[in-house]
Amino acid sequence: MRRFAHPPVDEIVLPALLSALADPVRLTIVRKLYDSQEGLCCADASPAGNLPKSTLSNHFRVLREAGLIRTEKNGLQHISQLRRAEIDKKFPGLLKLVLKLSEKEVR
Amino acid sequence: MRRFAHPPVDEIVLPALLSALADPVRLTIVRKLYDSQEGLCCADASPAGNLPKSTLSNHFRVLREAGLIRTEKNGLQHISQLRRAEIDKKFPGLLKLVLKLSEKEVR
Repeated sequence: MRRFAHPPVDEIVLPALLSALADPVRLTIVRKLYDSQEGLCCADASPAGNLPKSTLSNHFRVLREAGLIRTEKNGLQHISQLRRAEIDKKFPGLLKLVLKLSEKEVR
Repeated sequence: MRRFAHPPVDEIVLPALLSALADPVRLTIVRKLYDSQEGLCCADASPAGNLPKSTLSNHFRVLREAGLIRTEKNGLQHISQLRRAEIDKKFPGLLKLVLKLSEKEVR
């Protein structure tokens, strides 16, 4: 069974977080996860369109390695959740502001 | 005389801005320029330490291309200013929050 690695919260740093957020596709994923309580599978968290699966996997990996999301296997699906409480505690206001500012830009 | 290209404000987009801010050296440069009214030459805006000149030039180029700073030649110096009013109008609160959150992390 494939397990995903997630950085502990004290290893989450602002530059990596900003870098992970600096992409329209990843911003869309973060926005969808922000509004979800239970987490979403990759397909449901992804922007509409025909992005290759490998491209999407790479975006989820970047988000995971930056500490923004947590991915767990659930049956046949990978369910990702935003680490919202941890991020909001360590970087208060950042997620909310970035999502608000990107509202008009994100596809 | 070398002239620098600066994107017009309507071409400044959030992903490029976040990407430019996603680096400790560039965050230090932005912080120093944020506190300066008249702008600073490269040496004064740069972090302490012996970063190669080419590395610094590259950081300033990234900031310039993202629309964060404006660089003009003044005699023998290149003076850079943060485009603070434009950025604050287009992305209210972003610069201030990112600089605040990065305070403990930036070298």
